[in-house]
Amino acid sequence: MSWLNFFRTRRDEAAAGSNANLAKDRLQVIISHERVSRTREDFLPKMQQELVAVVTRYVAVDPDKVQVNLERGADLSTLAIEIELPGPKGKLT
Amino acid sequence: MSWLNFFRTRRDEAAAGSNANLAKDRLQVIISHERVSRTREDFLPKMQQELVAVVTRYVAVDPDKVQVNLERGADLSTLAIEIELPGPKGKLT
Repeated sequence: MSWLNFFRTRRDEAAAGSNANLAKDRLQVIISHERVSRTREDFLPKMQQELVAVVTRYVAVDPDKVQVNLERGADLSTLAIEIELPGPKGKLT
Repeated sequence: MSWLNFFRTRRDEAAAGSNANLAKDRLQVIISHERVSRTREDFLPKMQQELVAVVTRYVAVDPDKVQVNLERGADLSTLAIEIELPGPKGKLT
């Protein structure tokens, strides 16, 4: 399944399962770091701030609307940053 | 399903379905941009270079080992950046 179809299915399932209005502009940044060599440093936590900073150069981001979820395993870590974007008036000029 | 379990399942399925040695250090950056307001600009293509630049500040990246897949729909776009990382000797000093 392509990522476009994956996220579309995921969005539609979330919308179907909830009567809340989920129709918002939203950005999700998901990072997975697979480490065969356990000696490799897990740098996701450090990278997080810089990635959000990149996003804020393209669209106005309300820090209260940024959700971060870091999961760390011995050989795999994932970082999920979910940003609800303001309406069109929030566009960068 | 948590993102950690999602990527673990996906990695294990890929490994099971192939006799190639998939055991490599790998970083996947997946970004989805949901746009309710179609007027919102699709800024993923522009953001791509900056995101890879952030990663290269943390780990040595061979440009030949970076795969980018951009999919664009009217209301949803996804950008997948897959980076095969060098062995531990490739660590940044």
